[in-house]
Amino acid sequence: MDSLPVRTGGSPGSEVASITAYGPARSTVTDKPLSQDEIKKYTQYFYTTLYLCLGMIYLKENPLLREPLETKHIKTRLLGHWGSDAGQSFTYIHFNRLIKKYDLDAIFVSGPGHGAPAVLSNAYLEGTYSEVYPNMGEDEEGLRRFFRQFSFPGGIGSHATPETPGSLHEGGELGYSVSHAFGTVFDHPDLITLTMVGDGESETGPLATAWHGTKFLNPITDGAVLPVLHLNGYKINNPTVLARITKEELESLFIGYGWEPYFVEGSEVESMHQAMAGTLEQCVVKIKEYQKQARDSGKAFRPRWPMIVLRTPKGWTAPRKLDGKYLEGFWRAHQVPITDVHTNPDHLKILESWMKSYGTDKTLDKSGKLIPELRALAPDGNRRMSANPITNGGSVLKKLHVPDFRDYAIPVTKGGTLEYASMQNFAKFLRDIVGNNMSNFRVFGPDETQSNKLDTIYEAGKKIWFGEYFEEDADGGNLAFDGRVMEMLSEHTVEGWLEGYVLSGRHGMLNSYEPFIHIIDSMVNQHLKWLEKCIEVEWRQKIASLNILLTATVWRQDHNGFTHQDPGFLDVICNKSPEVTRIYLPPDGNSLLSVMDHCFRSKNYVNVIVADKQNHLQYMDMDQAIAHCTKGVGIWDWASSDDDLEPDVVMASCGDMATQEALAATALLREYLPEMRIRFVNVVDLFKLIPDTEHPHGLSAKDWKSLFTEDRPCIFNFHSYPWLIHRLTYHRKGQHKLHVRGYLEKGNIDTPLELAIRNHTDRFSLAIAAIDQVASYGNRGAHARETFLNRQIWAKNYAYHEGVDPEEITSWKWPF
Amino acid sequence: MDSLPVRTGGSPGSEVASITAYGPARSTVTDKPLSQDEIKKYTQYFYTTLYLCLGMIYLKENPLLREPLETKHIKTRLLGHWGSDAGQSFTYIHFNRLIKKYDLDAIFVSGPGHGAPAVLSNAYLEGTYSEVYPNMGEDEEGLRRFFRQFSFPGGIGSHATPETPGSLHEGGELGYSVSHAFGTVFDHPDLITLTMVGDGESETGPLATAWHGTKFLNPITDGAVLPVLHLNGYKINNPTVLARITKEELESLFIGYGWEPYFVEGSEVESMHQAMAGTLEQCVVKIKEYQKQARDSGKAFRPRWPMIVLRTPKGWTAPRKLDGKYLEGFWRAHQVPITDVHTNPDHLKILESWMKSYGTDKTLDKSGKLIPELRALAPDGNRRMSANPITNGGSVLKKLHVPDFRDYAIPVTKGGTLEYASMQNFAKFLRDIVGNNMSNFRVFGPDETQSNKLDTIYEAGKKIWFGEYFEEDADGGNLAFDGRVMEMLSEHTVEGWLEGYVLSGRHGMLNSYEPFIHIIDSMVNQHLKWLEKCIEVEWRQKIASLNILLTATVWRQDHNGFTHQDPGFLDVICNKSPEVTRIYLPPDGNSLLSVMDHCFRSKNYVNVIVADKQNHLQYMDMDQAIAHCTKGVGIWDWASSDDDLEPDVVMASCGDMATQEALAATALLREYLPEMRIRFVNVVDLFKLIPDTEHPHGLSAKDWKSLFTEDRPCIFNFHSYPWLIHRLTYHRKGQHKLHVRGYLEKGNIDTPLELAIRNHTDRFSLAIAAIDQVASYGNRGAHARETFLNRQIWAKNYAYHEGVDPEEITSWKWPF
Repeated sequence: MDSLPVRTGGSPGSEVASITAYGPARSTVTDKPLSQDEIKKYTQYFYTTLYLCLGMIYLKENPLLREPLETKHIKTRLLGHWGSDAGQSFTYIHFNRLIKKYDLDAIFVSGPGHGAPAVLSNAYLEGTYSEVYPNMGEDEEGLRRFFRQFSFPGGIGSHATPETPGSLHEGGELGYSVSHAFGTVFDHPDLITLTMVGDGESETGPLATAWHGTKFLNPITDGAVLPVLHLNGYKINNPTVLARITKEELESLFIGYGWEPYFVEGSEVESMHQAMAGTLEQCVVKIKEYQKQARDSGKAFRPRWPMIVLRTPKGWTAPRKLDGKYLEGFWRAHQVPITDVHTNPDHLKILESWMKSYGTDKTLDKSGKLIPELRALAPDGNRRMSANPITNGGSVLKKLHVPDFRDYAIPVTKGGTLEYASMQNFAKFLRDIVGNNMSNFRVFGPDETQSNKLDTIYEAGKKIWFGEYFEEDADGGNLAFDGRVMEMLSEHTVEGWLEGYVLSGRHGMLNSYEPFIHIIDSMVNQHLKWLEKCIEVEWRQKIASLNILLTATVWRQDHNGFTHQDPGFLDVICNKSPEVTRIYLPPDGNSLLSVMDHCFRSKNYVNVIVADKQNHLQYMDMDQAIAHCTKGVGIWDWASSDDDLEPDVVMASCGDMATQEALAATALLREYLPEMRIRFVNVVDLFKLIPDTEHPHGLSAKDWKSLFTEDRPCIFNFHSYPWLIHRLTYHRKGQHKLHVRGYLEKGNIDTPLELAIRNHTDRFSLAIAAIDQVASYGNRGAHARETFLNRQIWAKNYAYHEGVDPEEITSWKWPF
Repeated sequence: MDSLPVRTGGSPGSEVASITAYGPARSTVTDKPLSQDEIKKYTQYFYTTLYLCLGMIYLKENPLLREPLETKHIKTRLLGHWGSDAGQSFTYIHFNRLIKKYDLDAIFVSGPGHGAPAVLSNAYLEGTYSEVYPNMGEDEEGLRRFFRQFSFPGGIGSHATPETPGSLHEGGELGYSVSHAFGTVFDHPDLITLTMVGDGESETGPLATAWHGTKFLNPITDGAVLPVLHLNGYKINNPTVLARITKEELESLFIGYGWEPYFVEGSEVESMHQAMAGTLEQCVVKIKEYQKQARDSGKAFRPRWPMIVLRTPKGWTAPRKLDGKYLEGFWRAHQVPITDVHTNPDHLKILESWMKSYGTDKTLDKSGKLIPELRALAPDGNRRMSANPITNGGSVLKKLHVPDFRDYAIPVTKGGTLEYASMQNFAKFLRDIVGNNMSNFRVFGPDETQSNKLDTIYEAGKKIWFGEYFEEDADGGNLAFDGRVMEMLSEHTVEGWLEGYVLSGRHGMLNSYEPFIHIIDSMVNQHLKWLEKCIEVEWRQKIASLNILLTATVWRQDHNGFTHQDPGFLDVICNKSPEVTRIYLPPDGNSLLSVMDHCFRSKNYVNVIVADKQNHLQYMDMDQAIAHCTKGVGIWDWASSDDDLEPDVVMASCGDMATQEALAATALLREYLPEMRIRFVNVVDLFKLIPDTEHPHGLSAKDWKSLFTEDRPCIFNFHSYPWLIHRLTYHRKGQHKLHVRGYLEKGNIDTPLELAIRNHTDRFSLAIAAIDQVASYGNRGAHARETFLNRQIWAKNYAYHEGVDPEEITSWKWPF
């Protein structure tokens, strides 16, 4: 049997210190704020949480170890992670002290992977868990259930999943703790978000740049993020980079990022308590000082915000070695620390004495509940980080004051005749939402808000900036300490901020170039998974939808070339649960207003809205737009020529440029083949295409038939990759008659028309497709076909020669 | 007219210095290595490149401005970016000096967005452009064409696209310059990759963590990256973070990242030349010193590698103001610096004198060619960064020595009876590829190689590590200076390294958990776009495929929960060009070997291979596996019961777990309904499903029919989201008879079987589906159906009770 740490309840013995990896504490702050009695109590509390962590990993019966531990008490399949639990719990309980002392409003974000036992054990000891889940009371049977459900089928995961009270950050995919944390404190001036940052997580790109959040934090109107970088030393099977560079480099790195790093390093529990208590307190004092200075003076500034580097051994307080191999302080402590307790009786004994060494026979009373003198260490009610209502964002959701979008209507009198800047017009609506909700709504974007023609919003709220100011900034810089728009060239960071902002009960929108939204595929995926799981968690209240406005779309990325052409984000979204996904492609300016109004009012979705930023033809007045968007899909009578008879062909479109070309094709056909009966259908709400059995927005078979027919050919011009339409409609009767056009991954440096021609989404290709699908029109059909082909070729040649599209072909108005 | 910089050829006057934004140079290194004559020449060379940059943006005629500039000479649509051109070109030409002086092998990576004019102008002046594109010779007509094609339909883009000689990094999507650069220098001990890093780009997550590449660079066997962080000051419409923090912070940041930063700041051209020449030279000397020290002693170490912070005004050398608004040194200089030359004659005049002030009347000879005394400043032949063969990786591609994969065969005598660890077995093959190619092949992964059961490869090459070493590392750490495996918890970084490595002519593989590969959706997209464009560029030779092995797949992420379940990367890949995408899902161990062998030998693709890491049933001996993988899809006679007659139902599968459950369903049906004629089809090569008209691997209609029939129901069990199969097969006759099962985004903490049941991909659901699709089997059919349902329910209950799948239901062997 290897060196087993023998502990005695609240008196951590020298055995512990001597065998642990890192020895007595070394720290920047050397205050010793704790009495010996407090040290004893914090140790007992700390050890009790660790007992609970091991209990979750191992036990399905005998939760208080009142019987000798046998294999029948052990879960059949051992799952769960021990590695970062101790460091996280240690930090958590020390912050509890400061919450009580300073009456702090605080939440806890758990960044390291699979560290849920640390937060779950604290939520349980604070009583929150049993309040939320009464079947897991603070007694032996409750504890048994609490242990059993962990990483157990039908139970909860090893991350801070939505089922975890006090969590708004699951962290299954690593890298977003710091950006999420910043999101929570914006416009929450009293909040401190204590953020454990994994040192593995710190190697990810999103985390590595998120430290720059300090340049966007207002000490007057925002709260504070207090990051604790947990130098746990190891990832799954590798050391971490930040744990293996010199201290000078590490310190420099965080000074460089704009923080003041405080170090707490060691593994001897007693001295570590003093060091952590003193250091955390100094950080809180600093935060409050900076905030007071700014708030008293009314002058915002960027201080070097404090942060902590906590270096403790991975698997802290586990046996240092097992069978001669390193456990504590090595990557072997990452997951289940002793894996063979079912078959190795010696190891079962080690586990038992290890667990017993935490002394819960003294810290949990007869019934299994934490003794009152220890419970008193944690805060009460909503001051508990596990019960802070901000972590159940829907419960503190403030109403968004949205002006009447009809007031921003574009004056359309006749479809297809007026050109107008839809996006610039929408910006006015957005500006007034910003203005109406100055502490409740923000706009996020990666340096593209102005390029996306939304800069009117700066009238209501400029761009938040706490970097240095230069002379030129006065000349259209639109920078301000108290801005409402957040721009940093990191899709990861702005998405993370927005997620944190809505998760903590506010509203917002991200605008981005369409091609680069793939950068955050995985983040949006994870947010959707969070939302979807929240539906199953009864006590979770719905939060505001996360709105993503995609513009600078593929069809106007002709000049930027192939790298800027990717409309495939919709495919990613369509793989996620129908309960939480919505996709809209408004064809013009009034429909854009109507759609955005709907999105801002909605809850618990990710709304993806695709709309181009350039001038476009307008098709609907406001009443028409509202009616059309409410239905989500509909026939445009004014553009149809089927006179309510069965059409020869259905011309359908989804997306603004797609609609423009489809309408132009229809106009061409009217001119050349007026007898062709064309029904024009436009789709705004993409999920209308799915059967109603598969998505709440889906059309019934009957409604589908009334629009698309079941036997007529349909030329469907789509904004994105064409096969997405086939994927959505494969259950539809007559779907084999659907001829979908979309982006075929063909492009280089082109003009808009030429790009469309390359992908067969241009008016000529569509008109030809219609002719080819419908019964022959004899010579006139052949003539029209040839004319269209010739004009296409001419347009292409013209573009190659002049560098622009030929106006005489591309500019058109609805002719009737 | 505003303050126009008046320059006179090679004698930049005080007017320039006085009006530029940043004044005389301030730099860490104060050496002044240049003579006055050299300064004059470098200025002339620099100015000539800038003239060319403006020419590309503006001119379609009159390239030498020998006629007065008129609007008819100006491109109709003005496109292109001026902002970072000067700083990039400045750096490029100063490195030319050192290439000549030290006979350096160097390439240039252009990180800032849209900075192609800088590299294009240098490639043109070096003569490379005309060699590669003889129709754009070094004369007036050649120059005219060179200008005209830029950002022009049918021409080239404003990034360093594949058409650009000397480029292996396009950079349309920002963030990857540094990881790409590291990838190029691994195992290229003599190479220096001069890497311009945009300060906007630096805000991205991928770039922010890529600086840590120094912990993975061997000074003996690798070359060096010399980053020049271009503090250009602005992005599209915003200041950059790194340009607006204190110098102390900026310096600390890079010391923290492990670099030694040298500063060069200013805008006065003359003093900037001295500063840059001296500083770049010192960096090169340092690099060579460190390399010599390590190579002479045979002892590798991690020095603080030198880097440069170059602060020049955005749009450097443009007019400081235009119409009273800041241009040089502000974000207005980002793109086309003067936008209204078509309509504003004053501005046209400003443009003309601005261009003329660069003095090309003296630096370009009568024919339009650079005068010899300036041409002599640049290197010749392959020493030109624009002509370095490494940037055309296929031209220096070394053969990969792959052992015979048959030697690693798993001894399968009867399908479906042997359980074996396919991935661990493949690891032996991979180990020997590593061993055979010690300077030509690397394995990359985000801390999951061991978890993915590939750790056998450490026998041939350990993990490269230049962080600190601890005592524990000897105990299974597998770290080494001269390793061959690269692991960092950043999918972005390891993917970027691998891309750089293959782009510069080597081979490699990335292994990753399947769920988190979405993190690099956009990077893989961009690499695919690069590959696809390269096909159109005649002189580009094919590089090794980029191989992505996805394991820890969705069906075995039951215990990690919902965040770890996402097989949707395949959807992203399927949107890209068929010319460059390949997807394989080998069902067992021998097929995995065969597929991987094929992938390693292939060129110019992204190969995505999906295979689980756990033990699995084996189905094919090596000969069968080779035959099956060569076809890519086929009937498994041994698992079929249709006796070559028309089947009642086709049971198809794609993916290892999917195949296991489909076979188990088939076995169940044999047992309960032996008269059912089942044909079992397995798909390895996913693109077989697409028609041959759409993908080179696609099956012809005839072959499709011979496998799947056109009229029989097919239960298709798929690894990923089911609708992807519908998307691939929507053109197939009888596709409405395809009933696809796959991941439906349903999961929590489950067991593998339970997870399958939730998504209807388990054996019972599949067997029931078959019964439901085929003509009734009367009571026996109903009985079988009920039995399956009951066993399903029982299995679920068992899992909830015991925490594991019931062995008596899940473990099975092929029964016949």
